[in-house]
Amino acid sequence: MKQKLRMGMVGGGMGAFIGAVHRMAAAIDGEIELVCGAFSSDPEKSRASGAALGLPADRCYGTFEEMIRREKRLRPDRRMQFVSIVTPNHVHFAPAKMALENGFAVICDKPLAFNLKEALALEKIVEKTGQLFALTHNYTGYPMVKQARQMIRHGELGALRKVVVEYPQGWLSTPLESSGQKQASWRTDPARSGIAGAMGDIGTHAENLAEYITGQHITELCADISTFVPGRALDDDGNVLLHFSGGAKGILHASQISAGEENNLNIRVYGEKGGLEWRQMEPNTLLVKWLDRPTQVYRTGVGNLYPEAQAHTRIPAGHPEGYLEAFANIYRNFALCLRARLEGREPDPVYTDFPSVHDGVRGMRFIEKVIASGKSNKKWVGV
Amino acid sequence: MKQKLRMGMVGGGMGAFIGAVHRMAAAIDGEIELVCGAFSSDPEKSRASGAALGLPADRCYGTFEEMIRREKRLRPDRRMQFVSIVTPNHVHFAPAKMALENGFAVICDKPLAFNLKEALALEKIVEKTGQLFALTHNYTGYPMVKQARQMIRHGELGALRKVVVEYPQGWLSTPLESSGQKQASWRTDPARSGIAGAMGDIGTHAENLAEYITGQHITELCADISTFVPGRALDDDGNVLLHFSGGAKGILHASQISAGEENNLNIRVYGEKGGLEWRQMEPNTLLVKWLDRPTQVYRTGVGNLYPEAQAHTRIPAGHPEGYLEAFANIYRNFALCLRARLEGREPDPVYTDFPSVHDGVRGMRFIEKVIASGKSNKKWVGV
Amino acid sequence: MKQKLRMGMVGGGMGAFIGAVHRMAAAIDGEIELVCGAFSSDPEKSRASGAALGLPADRCYGTFEEMIRREKRLRPDRRMQFVSIVTPNHVHFAPAKMALENGFAVICDKPLAFNLKEALALEKIVEKTGQLFALTHNYTGYPMVKQARQMIRHGELGALRKVVVEYPQGWLSTPLESSGQKQASWRTDPARSGIAGAMGDIGTHAENLAEYITGQHITELCADISTFVPGRALDDDGNVLLHFSGGAKGILHASQISAGEENNLNIRVYGEKGGLEWRQMEPNTLLVKWLDRPTQVYRTGVGNLYPEAQAHTRIPAGHPEGYLEAFANIYRNFALCLRARLEGREPDPVYTDFPSVHDGVRGMRFIEKVIASGKSNKKWVGV
Amino acid sequence: MKQKLRMGMVGGGMGAFIGAVHRMAAAIDGEIELVCGAFSSDPEKSRASGAALGLPADRCYGTFEEMIRREKRLRPDRRMQFVSIVTPNHVHFAPAKMALENGFAVICDKPLAFNLKEALALEKIVEKTGQLFALTHNYTGYPMVKQARQMIRHGELGALRKVVVEYPQGWLSTPLESSGQKQASWRTDPARSGIAGAMGDIGTHAENLAEYITGQHITELCADISTFVPGRALDDDGNVLLHFSGGAKGILHASQISAGEENNLNIRVYGEKGGLEWRQMEPNTLLVKWLDRPTQVYRTGVGNLYPEAQAHTRIPAGHPEGYLEAFANIYRNFALCLRARLEGREPDPVYTDFPSVHDGVRGMRFIEKVIASGKSNKKWVGV
Repeated sequence: MKQKLRMGMVGGGMGAFIGAVHRMAAAIDGEIELVCGAFSSDPEKSRASGAALGLPADRCYGTFEEMIRREKRLRPDRRMQFVSIVTPNHVHFAPAKMALENGFAVICDKPLAFNLKEALALEKIVEKTGQLFALTHNYTGYPMVKQARQMIRHGELGALRKVVVEYPQGWLSTPLESSGQKQASWRTDPARSGIAGAMGDIGTHAENLAEYITGQHITELCADISTFVPGRALDDDGNVLLHFSGGAKGILHASQISAGEENNLNIRVYGEKGGLEWRQMEPNTLLVKWLDRPTQVYRTGVGNLYPEAQAHTRIPAGHPEGYLEAFANIYRNFALCLRARLEGREPDPVYTDFPSVHDGVRGMRFIEKVIASGKSNKKWVGV
Repeated sequence: MKQKLRMGMVGGGMGAFIGAVHRMAAAIDGEIELVCGAFSSDPEKSRASGAALGLPADRCYGTFEEMIRREKRLRPDRRMQFVSIVTPNHVHFAPAKMALENGFAVICDKPLAFNLKEALALEKIVEKTGQLFALTHNYTGYPMVKQARQMIRHGELGALRKVVVEYPQGWLSTPLESSGQKQASWRTDPARSGIAGAMGDIGTHAENLAEYITGQHITELCADISTFVPGRALDDDGNVLLHFSGGAKGILHASQISAGEENNLNIRVYGEKGGLEWRQMEPNTLLVKWLDRPTQVYRTGVGNLYPEAQAHTRIPAGHPEGYLEAFANIYRNFALCLRARLEGREPDPVYTDFPSVHDGVRGMRFIEKVIASGKSNKKWVGV
Repeated sequence: MKQKLRMGMVGGGMGAFIGAVHRMAAAIDGEIELVCGAFSSDPEKSRASGAALGLPADRCYGTFEEMIRREKRLRPDRRMQFVSIVTPNHVHFAPAKMALENGFAVICDKPLAFNLKEALALEKIVEKTGQLFALTHNYTGYPMVKQARQMIRHGELGALRKVVVEYPQGWLSTPLESSGQKQASWRTDPARSGIAGAMGDIGTHAENLAEYITGQHITELCADISTFVPGRALDDDGNVLLHFSGGAKGILHASQISAGEENNLNIRVYGEKGGLEWRQMEPNTLLVKWLDRPTQVYRTGVGNLYPEAQAHTRIPAGHPEGYLEAFANIYRNFALCLRARLEGREPDPVYTDFPSVHDGVRGMRFIEKVIASGKSNKKWVGV
Repeated sequence: MKQKLRMGMVGGGMGAFIGAVHRMAAAIDGEIELVCGAFSSDPEKSRASGAALGLPADRCYGTFEEMIRREKRLRPDRRMQFVSIVTPNHVHFAPAKMALENGFAVICDKPLAFNLKEALALEKIVEKTGQLFALTHNYTGYPMVKQARQMIRHGELGALRKVVVEYPQGWLSTPLESSGQKQASWRTDPARSGIAGAMGDIGTHAENLAEYITGQHITELCADISTFVPGRALDDDGNVLLHFSGGAKGILHASQISAGEENNLNIRVYGEKGGLEWRQMEPNTLLVKWLDRPTQVYRTGVGNLYPEAQAHTRIPAGHPEGYLEAFANIYRNFALCLRARLEGREPDPVYTDFPSVHDGVRGMRFIEKVIASGKSNKKWVGV
């Protein structure tokens, strides 16, 4: 009889958006069970959140330190096996560090940390402790994103020339943060988000997606970073020229003031032989374009997808899988890898794909460089 | 501390498609826990399936009869609280009847039963036992389907005139059943599916969707029913003219030989003042069309949706929710209603919406009439 | 030095919609010159319309009889060479007959005539006089429609099974005819349109398109014909089941009360091996669907289209060609065939494709049968 | 009786792409007649081209100088009234200058000239001679582009913040110029195109479209200009950051190596209150996006468009108008203005909209700056 893996959560109390997403994503595949949490820095709130989630009072902690300390003392077959960190950016490093150093695997929301320094430190801790670590750059969890990556990896497009990655949103078109809206408040607060607003929140998703799909790293960038909403402390829009390690050139733009846009992450990649296009809002479709031949509409579950794509879809073609399922792919792969490790065996390679601490470090470096470039008169900034 | 509701499952052993869907749908919202099952008529297979799902051997039964009998003897705080039936059509009635008569609520896959007679009998049992019963016509679980229904109910389109509902698939374009594929085998087998193939499997989904959205019932129909693949015992295509109780006229067509179609359920409804269009494969979009004014693109999570729609979305606009989430809406509402009932209180009305045994009876009557019409030279057949 | 072909026009005075369309279509390719017209039954109006079009007063006639008589007396190198008839349905037969019998080729708007009897008579006149005759079922002029026809003709989809052809419009959702709107007035008037409203105006376009693309004829039909707008004398909506000569089954629906629809003619055809989908409102795209392979997006001007398709596009891929260009393809092919005939040579076969008087007869038969079926209790009516 | 305006053409002999486009565009509306041309620098070829177009031999000239000189000597009611210049860039200035200085109006293909110096000189000549001059930046001829411009002008989107304009093509993904293909040869040849390849050919279209729709000018830019195809002499790709005069920021990218793209010019503009999106390949649709309200699908011919948009559509909604019709809008407006001027009256203001020599100068300045920026290490270059 298979046991579910036991998860403890840091953050994600009642009213939080991303905490609920992590819990749904962790639940879908029946691999993971939430057993405890420090859902809020207020012990009362943490307990209330936990009770609403069906947790007993003695597994609802007031702080992550308490959680890690006390869980560690529980019987091995009872205590949590990994920690999910879903707090704002300034509370990623400390719980991740403590969890890792106390023998717990960690799955952490993005961006990795409050700043690059923290990120580099965390990378070292992951390496030193040897614990499993995943970062929820969830958009790489979509099957068609994996298909795109494999098509490029196998040379179907030829050498890459051009990448256009976009992440327009409109939800911060007005000074929403002054209304007290929770998400808007911390996302626009340098004390909790770090030096970047839109570029940190969604710019890193775009950067991660482009690097994941192309298999190339950004080597140089030139950024025009703006804050359009008066009084806002952090950027709400950025346009960036990119150079990639493999010779491709590109554009990245991310925005939270693109009025009327929902969550329109999308990418186009062009190589010598063909191009491809993927849009997060219709994630089960991948357009593959060819020189003077009809465009092909690749679809989740249709035809001979690469195993890496096929393994990340659950239901037959035409039954749309969405954001939660892509998010769940990160959790499931993390769980399958953790289970294999606990059982002393190698995981199935097709299920080992999830963003790492190194991806997280690259994201933090991107943030630092893109903000620096925005303030610079120099054209190109190395990454 | 909230307890999860305890679910037992009939059918859905390893390799089954719809059983896994039910389990994922039940898991997403953290309201339901699978505690036992009779996953296969072979006790060995049932136990193996249960073990793979993390169930102890003593909760994996060889038959639904054994499951219901033995669960009933367990302590009330331990035994299953409802039964999920995910078997082929010919094994819906017996477990549903036994579960209801032994005090368990039931959630059952569609169509309701093997034939209309069974369906009517089941309707009486539900009424007599007073147990909660839900049918998983899952497509009504989509938020934008609920929005469509509410817009029509509130008169936004005026009196309805025309309904076009389509359900084209292509997966049975070849004699797949002769390859031994599990789904294809029983779907095309009159002994397990009943008198209808495509019309029973997906025609009823189309019928249910049209009646749900319009709030009208089909009163007359005229059908052209075909079997295109040689040697196939049941229909694989049907074209149907419809008359509705409120005066609308319509077309329903369902097909499993529409080569190259995935699962393209869609509906258009036109009234005096405007029209609407919804497509299951891009389910977060509802097009609303007006007389000489720009079409509006209603989207999950954007703007002032009706509460009935808004309550069935979990994540912000632009984060696509799909098939599993819509399916989960049926499970969650069923669970919330069951919980309210167990706690002796009224459920929140916004969460009481799921297909009933009466919807199931209408579906079975549709199957009988549509097949009869297909064989008749008379133009119109009353429903 | 090439001379333009000289065209006379019947109907299409100032304010008329379709007359202007014919003139633009005739002008685009530089093959045709408008030299005279009987633009209105009121000689004053006819002259005013002609003057606005740059015609001298002596070539603007008060009646088509006068035009045909007097043009015939002009020098051969000056007089018109063919007549374009763009009047309402009840004024198709007489000018066509007189023109043909006086040695003029004819291009005529659809449907062919006021009723089937006239159509059959006209067919005989065309055959007897041997004059060139074209009917402007313009939608077959689109390159991608021709591509679809050729793909089916060459067996790319295998034996056809299912056809769905739709023509929803919304412009007659209200009693527009009572406002005096010119188009609405005659389209809903049995004295000018004949026995059918929507089915005659656009139902025949759908019928023609389906027969053109599939290469099969409708052999039986079963129709549900409605008039939704109170007080309207002719049908404004029809839903029809179809049987085709080659064994395909189908659905045709046409409507002018589908509120919010513009001019949404579209067709889907499914065969044993694949399917295709074309939509008039995005006419440069043809979706080609396959069994468990990615759908292909055929586009005007991209890749190896059949010569019959390629020859009917004028500009490179991605420069959209529209309704007028498709219409112009009818005029150009008619002109090229007429020129070849006048020069005593065979036309290039790739440019000989335009709807014939026989297509027109089939359309009129469709109208009679579909209206008869709408009134019948018998299920199937032979065509 | 209205006379057509008489046009002479420079360039556009047999086999040329853009010459045929200009002729079709000029023909559609029945306002213009081609009466003469210097279609090729080879007198034989010029005559053959003219004969194929139905022109008498004495109106087919071997050089534009000859055409202008000899036409000038013809009777005023016979000679050409304006010159259409459809040659490669290096042969724009000389015929335009000579035509203008000899009393002829001019309509000229884009970009305006071979370089900025020529463009500025031509601007002066236009001003000095007072002749009418139009530049065929044809994409501004689309009705929905005009609607977009008017919506912004009337403040419907509020102050603009962000502009994304794209022009990806794939046709030069391979060294097509080495195959002798006519278009590819001169477009990639500095001696005929000037200093820019893709940026001159299509980058200027994007620049013109962005400035037209926003009503703002580009004030600063930062460009990354590339040549991907080995051996090519001019750029085939460019990514550009933009600052606009009204405070908006933006991105422009144009490419001829975006494999699989046809002619995908598109633009998105975001303001404080809403955004809009237009795509040339589906030109009859304009998406208008709002803060937390459903997106609206504006369509050619539907609803209350601004008069400036409505006046540039010819046929009812749902009958797609395309590239030629947009091109024809430039010709028609030019013709209506020229006719008004010849008749000594003011033209109808709604038909006076076409690109001017000043737009052309801005385009040439854009080319010079964008190429300079591509070679510079400085971040921003003023325009």
